[in-house]
Amino acid sequence: MATRLEHDFLGERAIPQDVYYGIQTLRSLENFHITGIPLKSEPLFVQALGYVKKAAAMANKELGVLDAGIADAIIRASDRVIAGEFNDQFLSDLIQGGAGTSVNMNANEVIANVALEMMGHQKGEYKYCHPNNHVNCSQSTNDAYPTAFRIAIINKLTAYTQALGDLADAFAAKGVAFHGVLKMGRTQLQDAVPMSMGDEFHAFATNLREELSRIEDSKRLISEINMGATAIGTGVNAPAGYADIVTRHLATITGLDLKLATDLIEATYDAGAYVQLSGVLKRTAVKVSKICNDLRLLSSGPRAGLNEINLPPLQPGSSIMPGKVNPVIPEVVNQTAFYVIGADLTVTLAAEAGQLQLNVMEPVIAFSLFTAITYMTNACVTLREKCVEGITANADHTRNMVMNSIGIVTQLNPIIGYEKSASIAREALQTGKSVHDLVVKEQQLITQEKWDEIFTFENMSKPVFINR
Amino acid sequence: MATRLEHDFLGERAIPQDVYYGIQTLRSLENFHITGIPLKSEPLFVQALGYVKKAAAMANKELGVLDAGIADAIIRASDRVIAGEFNDQFLSDLIQGGAGTSVNMNANEVIANVALEMMGHQKGEYKYCHPNNHVNCSQSTNDAYPTAFRIAIINKLTAYTQALGDLADAFAAKGVAFHGVLKMGRTQLQDAVPMSMGDEFHAFATNLREELSRIEDSKRLISEINMGATAIGTGVNAPAGYADIVTRHLATITGLDLKLATDLIEATYDAGAYVQLSGVLKRTAVKVSKICNDLRLLSSGPRAGLNEINLPPLQPGSSIMPGKVNPVIPEVVNQTAFYVIGADLTVTLAAEAGQLQLNVMEPVIAFSLFTAITYMTNACVTLREKCVEGITANADHTRNMVMNSIGIVTQLNPIIGYEKSASIAREALQTGKSVHDLVVKEQQLITQEKWDEIFTFENMSKPVFINR
Amino acid sequence: MATRLEHDFLGERAIPQDVYYGIQTLRSLENFHITGIPLKSEPLFVQALGYVKKAAAMANKELGVLDAGIADAIIRASDRVIAGEFNDQFLSDLIQGGAGTSVNMNANEVIANVALEMMGHQKGEYKYCHPNNHVNCSQSTNDAYPTAFRIAIINKLTAYTQALGDLADAFAAKGVAFHGVLKMGRTQLQDAVPMSMGDEFHAFATNLREELSRIEDSKRLISEINMGATAIGTGVNAPAGYADIVTRHLATITGLDLKLATDLIEATYDAGAYVQLSGVLKRTAVKVSKICNDLRLLSSGPRAGLNEINLPPLQPGSSIMPGKVNPVIPEVVNQTAFYVIGADLTVTLAAEAGQLQLNVMEPVIAFSLFTAITYMTNACVTLREKCVEGITANADHTRNMVMNSIGIVTQLNPIIGYEKSASIAREALQTGKSVHDLVVKEQQLITQEKWDEIFTFENMSKPVFINR
Amino acid sequence: MATRLEHDFLGERAIPQDVYYGIQTLRSLENFHITGIPLKSEPLFVQALGYVKKAAAMANKELGVLDAGIADAIIRASDRVIAGEFNDQFLSDLIQGGAGTSVNMNANEVIANVALEMMGHQKGEYKYCHPNNHVNCSQSTNDAYPTAFRIAIINKLTAYTQALGDLADAFAAKGVAFHGVLKMGRTQLQDAVPMSMGDEFHAFATNLREELSRIEDSKRLISEINMGATAIGTGVNAPAGYADIVTRHLATITGLDLKLATDLIEATYDAGAYVQLSGVLKRTAVKVSKICNDLRLLSSGPRAGLNEINLPPLQPGSSIMPGKVNPVIPEVVNQTAFYVIGADLTVTLAAEAGQLQLNVMEPVIAFSLFTAITYMTNACVTLREKCVEGITANADHTRNMVMNSIGIVTQLNPIIGYEKSASIAREALQTGKSVHDLVVKEQQLITQEKWDEIFTFENMSKPVFINR
Repeated sequence: MATRLEHDFLGERAIPQDVYYGIQTLRSLENFHITGIPLKSEPLFVQALGYVKKAAAMANKELGVLDAGIADAIIRASDRVIAGEFNDQFLSDLIQGGAGTSVNMNANEVIANVALEMMGHQKGEYKYCHPNNHVNCSQSTNDAYPTAFRIAIINKLTAYTQALGDLADAFAAKGVAFHGVLKMGRTQLQDAVPMSMGDEFHAFATNLREELSRIEDSKRLISEINMGATAIGTGVNAPAGYADIVTRHLATITGLDLKLATDLIEATYDAGAYVQLSGVLKRTAVKVSKICNDLRLLSSGPRAGLNEINLPPLQPGSSIMPGKVNPVIPEVVNQTAFYVIGADLTVTLAAEAGQLQLNVMEPVIAFSLFTAITYMTNACVTLREKCVEGITANADHTRNMVMNSIGIVTQLNPIIGYEKSASIAREALQTGKSVHDLVVKEQQLITQEKWDEIFTFENMSKPVFINR
Repeated sequence: MATRLEHDFLGERAIPQDVYYGIQTLRSLENFHITGIPLKSEPLFVQALGYVKKAAAMANKELGVLDAGIADAIIRASDRVIAGEFNDQFLSDLIQGGAGTSVNMNANEVIANVALEMMGHQKGEYKYCHPNNHVNCSQSTNDAYPTAFRIAIINKLTAYTQALGDLADAFAAKGVAFHGVLKMGRTQLQDAVPMSMGDEFHAFATNLREELSRIEDSKRLISEINMGATAIGTGVNAPAGYADIVTRHLATITGLDLKLATDLIEATYDAGAYVQLSGVLKRTAVKVSKICNDLRLLSSGPRAGLNEINLPPLQPGSSIMPGKVNPVIPEVVNQTAFYVIGADLTVTLAAEAGQLQLNVMEPVIAFSLFTAITYMTNACVTLREKCVEGITANADHTRNMVMNSIGIVTQLNPIIGYEKSASIAREALQTGKSVHDLVVKEQQLITQEKWDEIFTFENMSKPVFINR
Repeated sequence: MATRLEHDFLGERAIPQDVYYGIQTLRSLENFHITGIPLKSEPLFVQALGYVKKAAAMANKELGVLDAGIADAIIRASDRVIAGEFNDQFLSDLIQGGAGTSVNMNANEVIANVALEMMGHQKGEYKYCHPNNHVNCSQSTNDAYPTAFRIAIINKLTAYTQALGDLADAFAAKGVAFHGVLKMGRTQLQDAVPMSMGDEFHAFATNLREELSRIEDSKRLISEINMGATAIGTGVNAPAGYADIVTRHLATITGLDLKLATDLIEATYDAGAYVQLSGVLKRTAVKVSKICNDLRLLSSGPRAGLNEINLPPLQPGSSIMPGKVNPVIPEVVNQTAFYVIGADLTVTLAAEAGQLQLNVMEPVIAFSLFTAITYMTNACVTLREKCVEGITANADHTRNMVMNSIGIVTQLNPIIGYEKSASIAREALQTGKSVHDLVVKEQQLITQEKWDEIFTFENMSKPVFINR
Repeated sequence: MATRLEHDFLGERAIPQDVYYGIQTLRSLENFHITGIPLKSEPLFVQALGYVKKAAAMANKELGVLDAGIADAIIRASDRVIAGEFNDQFLSDLIQGGAGTSVNMNANEVIANVALEMMGHQKGEYKYCHPNNHVNCSQSTNDAYPTAFRIAIINKLTAYTQALGDLADAFAAKGVAFHGVLKMGRTQLQDAVPMSMGDEFHAFATNLREELSRIEDSKRLISEINMGATAIGTGVNAPAGYADIVTRHLATITGLDLKLATDLIEATYDAGAYVQLSGVLKRTAVKVSKICNDLRLLSSGPRAGLNEINLPPLQPGSSIMPGKVNPVIPEVVNQTAFYVIGADLTVTLAAEAGQLQLNVMEPVIAFSLFTAITYMTNACVTLREKCVEGITANADHTRNMVMNSIGIVTQLNPIIGYEKSASIAREALQTGKSVHDLVVKEQQLITQEKWDEIFTFENMSKPVFINR
C-alpha cells in the first residue's frame, strides 16, 4: 500500500496515500475504540464541519489573514465536504477524548488534502494548505467543534419535529374519528366518569404538540455559537472583527438563525443548551411513554382486559400461544423512551463534569443527543405508521361498560347530593345492580325522563350542569 | 379528650373536638406514614389551597350554585387559612396515595369547620357547610390539588430566583474586583492561554443569569391551570362558565398571571410542566455544581495545589490536621446539586407513571419540587453569603504562573507559526526553560520589544491579533 | 443567657453555657442550612458515634496513648450518648460540607463536655478532656465518620429487613389463600394462559425474599471499616496496633461483625459499599413498584377494569366521585420507590465526585441512604398492614374470564398443532364464540371427555403435557 | 429475485429464496427500525440462541416429544449457528417490541431452514421441520429469549473481567514502581499529609479488584434460567421433566454453571438479575471515572497544575495551542462511564415497567447491558494500554511539594499538640515560611534530630507513632 509520511510534534507516521485524512486522525483511530460508531454515521455533523470551515475561510479571507488563493481552495473543498462527497473519510469514534480535537482535526486534514488536490498539489504537501495554519485559521477545536455540533443538532431536529408533529396529527385525526365513542374515563385505574374516546385521543395530540414549542425554545439556545472564541473565549489568535463576520457568513450559508454568544468565556465551557435540549427530549420521551402505556392498557384483552381499542396486528405475538397478537409498536416505543431518559442522564453527568474553561466531555454529549434524536424520530414515525393510524375502537363494548358502571352516579351529585350518591354506589357494588335500576326503579330518586335527559352522549362527554 | 363523631361512606369515626380537620384527614393520617414530613411544612401550599377554595366559592356564588351565606363563610374561612392561621391543621404526609385527595379533603374539612364556627355552628355540623357539597363544590381533587400546587410552586420560585440572581450578582461583583488579575486559563486541566480572573468570575454570573430566563419560561407553563376540569377534564358537575370565572378570580386574588388550559382532558393528567421545571432546576444544579467544582479546584492547596483564590475560612477543616481549612461551602452546594439531580429523576419516573385520565403520582412530584426548590434556595444564599462574597485572589502567584507557563507560546502562532511554536513548547517542557528565554534570547525569533508588545495584560486577557 | 467562651484556630466564640456542643458545632450550625434536618433525626447515627468514640478511648487506653482517667471518662460519657441521653445536642444539618467533620466534632465536643462534667469540671475546661486531643485521639473524621455511618446503616437495616421479610410472608400467605383461584395469566397485557392466583402471589413473595440475600451481601461490604486509617489511610498519628484493637473493641461493643479493611488508603476514599447498598435498595424499589403496579392493575374496575382482586378500602377515593375507592397504598408505595430510585442517583453522583484521598460527598450519601431506608421500611410496613393482608379475590369472575378466553387454546397445541390452534383463536376473536364451542361442538376436534381432562384446575394451573 | 411463499396466521408473504429466516423475521424487519443495530452485532447472543435450541431439541428427543430425525437435524443445524456460520441471518433490531419474540422466531426460522436443507428439503418446507412446532418445541419466547440472553451475558463478561483484572494489575504494577515516590496526600483538594505514590496507585488496583468479586456475584444470579417455564411459568405444553433435563443439557454444552430457577412464575417476569448486574457495571463505572478524574488532576499542568505524574502523550492536544498534550484517554474513559451510568437508568426503567407475568421490556435491557459491557471492556483495555502502563512520576517535584507543605505539621500533633500545630500552620500560611523553619529554627519546639527522625520517607508514608 502506497503511503505518504506526515508528522506532528509527537513524531512521524506513514499514512495510506489514498486517504484524505492525516496523521492526527490516524492517531485518533488508534486511540479511541469505544463504541465502534464512526463520525460518518452522523452525516449532518460532517456537513456542519464543512460549513464551519467554509465560513472561517470566508472570514479569514475577508480580513486578510488568509491568502485568497488558499482561502478559495478551502472554501471549494469545504463545499464538497458539505455535499457529502468525503463522508467516508470521517472515521473518529463518536465517543473520544480531547474535547473533539480529533473530530476537528479530521475535518481540517480532509479539507486541507482535498484543497491541495484541487490546487494541483499532492495530498500531504501542507506548506500550500496546512490543516492547522490554514484550514483551522482563527479557530480552535473549542469553538469549531461545538459550533458544528450545534448546526448538526438543529438540522437533525428538522426531521424529528416533522415526525413528532405528524404523530400528533395522527392522534388528532383519531380524535375526530372517535368523537362519538362513549367510554369510561378512569383515574387511578378505577372507573371514574364517562367521556368521549375522541377527546382522549385528541388530548394525546395536545400533549405532543406542546413539545414542538419546547423544541423551538431549545433551538434558540442551541443557535448561540462561539466562533471566534478560539481556545478559551479570549479570542486569542483571531483577528479583530472575526467573530461577528464568521457568524454572519455561517448564518448565511447554513440558512440558520445563528447568533454569537455575548460572553465568549462562558460560552466556551457552557453545556447548558445541551442539558436543556436533552431535558426536552426526555420530557417528550416521558409523554410518549405514558401514551404508549395507555395504548397498551386500552388494547388489553382481548377478553380478560379492557379491550377498548384494537391496535393493528403486525406479527404473531407468541411462539407458543396461537392467535396472540401483541402491542409490539407501543412496546418498542416505550423502550426507546427509556433509552432517551438514560441518555439524558449521560448528558447531565457530562455537563456537570466540565472544568474551568472547557467542557471536555462534549463528545459523549454529542453521542447521546445524536442517538436520542435519531431513535426518537424513528419511534415517532413507527408509532404513527405502524400503530396509531390503524387503531380502531370497540364502541359497543365501551358504551356498555359505561352504562354498566357505577361511576355514572357522579353525575347525580348535584341532584341527590354526594352522600346519597355514595350510598347508591355502595349498594350497586355490593349487589351487582345497576345504578339505573337503583336510582330510577327501586328508589325512584329521579324519573326516567330526568335520567334520559342526563345520560345522553353529549351530556356525558361534555356535561352540562343539571341540578334538581 | 372530647370528641365528635363524623362519618363518610366507609363508616363513622371519633374526631378530637378541638381539631378542624375531619374524618377523611384522620384516615389519611392513619394511612400514610412514609416521610413524616407534613403538609404544614410547606406553608405556601396551605396558603394556595386557601386561595383555590376561596376562588371556587366566589365563582360558585356568582353562578348561583352555592348559597350566598355559605359561600361567604367559606370565603372568610379561606382568608384565615390564607393568612396562615390554621397551618397546624394541615398534617397529611407530603408523599401520599390518592393523587392528593387527602390534601384536598384536609383543606375542605378545615375550611368547612372554620366556616361553621364563623357561622355560629359547631365543628362537624356539616349540614350547614359540608366539606364535599359546599367547600369542594364544582371541584375535584384532580383540579383543586394541581392548581394549588402550581400556585405554591410559583410563589416558592420568587425566593429562589431572588437568591439565584443575588448569587449571580455576587459573581459579577467579583468579576469587577478581579478584573486586573492575570491568570492561566485551563482546558482539560492543562495549561492553555492567559486570561483575566475577572472574566472567569463574570462568566459564572453570565452562566447563572441565563437560568433566570429558563425559570421564567417554566413559570409560564406552570401558570396553566385546570380549574373546572373536575374529575377527568369533562367538567362534570361544574356549572357552565365556571372554569373561566374561577380562573379569573384566582388570578385576581393571588396576583398571578394564571391561565386556563385549553385542553382540560389533557391538562388533568399532564405532568409536562413539572418535568420542565424540574429539568430547569436540574440544569441550574448542574451549573452550580460545575462552578463549585471550579472554586474548589482554584482554591486547592495552599501549597500543593493551584492556590489561585482563597475562600473565606469558616471552620477548622479537620479534626486531626491542624490549620487545615476546607472549601466546605462549595462542598455542601455540590451535594445539594446531587440531591436536586436525583429529585429530577424522581419527578421523571412519577411523570412517566401517569395512566389514562390522571397522574396519580403527583404528590411525590410535589415533594420533590418543594424540597428541590427549598434546598437550592438555601444553597444559593449560603454560597453567596458564606463563600463568594469573601473570595480573594492571589494575584502575584497567578501572574507568575502565567509568565512561567508554556501556554503563552500560543500567542506567537500568527508570528512564528503553529509548528515552530510547538517545537518551542516541546523544548521548554523538556528543558524547564521559559518560553521567553527560548524565543527572545536563545533563538531570537522575536525582539524584546515585540515580546513586550504582545505580552501586556490587555493583550493576554483580550488579545488583539498581532502578526509578523 | 449565660455563655462560656471557646476558641479554635479561627478565633473565639461565646457558647450558651447549657449546651454540650462547642465552638465547632456552633460554626457548623451557622454554616449549613440546607435541609433543616438535623443529625438527631437519625438516632442510630448518634448512637454509632458514641460507639466509635468509646471504642477509640478503649484502644487508646489499652495502648497507653491516653491517660486512663480521661479515657474512662470518655468511655462513660460515650455510654450515655449511646443510650440516647444527649440526642438533642446533635444538631448539624445532615447535608454538610467538610466530609462530616462537623458531625465528628459535634460528637467530640458533646462527649468531651459530658466527660468533663462527670469528672467534676465545667463544660469547656478542655485542658482536662479535649475534643481533639483526647476524644478524637488516634482518629480523624475520615475514619470516625464513615465507621459510625456504617454502623448506623447496619443497625437501620435490621428494621428494614424485618419489614421486607414480613411483607414477603404476607404475600406468601396470600399465595396459600388464593391457591385454588383460577385466573388468566397475562403477558404484554394480553390474555395468555391460565394460572393459579396463588402462584401469582407466591411469586411476589419469592421476588422479595431474594432481596433479603442481596441486603446480607451489602451488609458484608458495609461491615468493612477503616478505623486507624486517620487522615488519608496512612494511619498518621495512630499508635502501632491501634487499628486492629479499636476494630475488635468496636465489634464487641456493637455486637456487629466488623472487619478492618485491608487497604486503608483505598478504604478512606472508597464509596463502593454505599453504591452497592444503594443499588440493592433501588433493585428492591423496582420490584416493589412492579408489584404495586400489578396490584393496581388487578384491582382495576370495579366494572370497567380487570377486577380480579379487591384491596381493602381505606378512605373515600374522591372528593367528587361518590363511592370511589382508590388503591391508595400501592400508589404511595410506588411513589416511595420513585424516591428511592432518585436517591440512588444522588448516591451515584456523590460517589463519582470523590477526589484523590477522600470522598468529601459522604454526607449526602448518608442523607440519601438514611432517608431511603426509612421510607422503604415505612412503605413495606404500610403495604403489608394496610393492603396485602386484606386483599380478597373475585374467584368466580376470574374463573369466568379464563373459560371465556381465547388463550386457553394454547393448551391444545400439542394435540391439534400450533397452526390449527391459531385458526381457532382467530375465529373465536372474529365471531365472539368460545374456544370450547368451536373445538368441541362445531369442529369436533376433540371430544368433550378430552376437553374435560385437559381443562381441570390442576391441569391449567400446573399443566401436565397431554398430547393426542 | 427468487422468492418462496411463507404464511403465518396474519397472512402470506414472499421471502427471498436465499435467506434462511422466514416470514416472522421479515415482519420484524419491517416493524422495528429504531437503532439500526442488528442482532448479529452481538455474535455471542446468536451463539447462545443456538445453544438453547440445541439443548431443547436434545431434551425433546430424550422425552420423546420430538421425532428423533427432526431433533437430530435441529441439533446439527444449531451447531452450525453456534459456530457462527449464519450470523448474517440474524437481523432484528436489538430494540424491539414483543419481548424478544422476533429474536426467538429469527432463531427458530433460521434453524428450521438450515435443518431442512441438511435433511434434503427446500427452505420453507416446514412440514418436515417447523419453526414453532419443532424448533420451538416445549419452549416459549419467554423462556428461550431470556435464557439465551443470560448465556450471552455470561460469556461477554469473560472478556470484560479479563480486561478489568488486567487494568487492576497495571495499576498494581505502578504501585510497585512508584513505591519510593513521596507525595502530598490531599483531602477535599487541600494539602493533607504525605504518602507514597505507590500506595496511591496500589489503592486503584484494590479498588478495581473488588469489582471482580461483585461481577462473580452477579454471574451467579444471571446463571438462574427458566427453561421449561414456557409462556408464563406454568410450563404449559412442556412435557414432565423437561425443565430439569434441558437445563442439564444446556449447562453441559455451554460449559456454564446454569441452574433452574426455583419459582418459574417469578423467574419468567423477574428482571432482578439484570438490575443487579447493571448496578455492578455502574459501580465499576463510578470507580473508573473517579480514578480517571484523579489521573487528570495529578497530571494537570505542566506548570500551572499539580504536575505529579505524566500520562503518555498520544496525540497533539489542540488545534491551536502548540505543544499542548491532553489526558485524552482518561477523558474518553470518563465519558464511557457516563454512558454506562445512563444505561443503568435505562435498565432500571425497563425493569420497573414489567407487568404481570412478563417483563416485555427485556430487549432494551439486553441492548443496554450488551453495549455497556462492550464499551466498558474497550475502556479498560484502552486505559491500560494507552495510559496506565506508560505513566511516569515527577518524583523530585512531588517530594519538594511535601517538604514545602504545611500539612506535614500534622505529624507533630502527638508531640506539640493539635493547638500548637494549628498555630504553626497558621503562621506558615501567613508568612510563607516553612514548617521546618518555624518549628526547628525559630521556635525550637523540636530538635533537628527529632525532625529528621520524624520526617523520613518511611515515617511519612507509613507513619510510626512517635510522641515526645
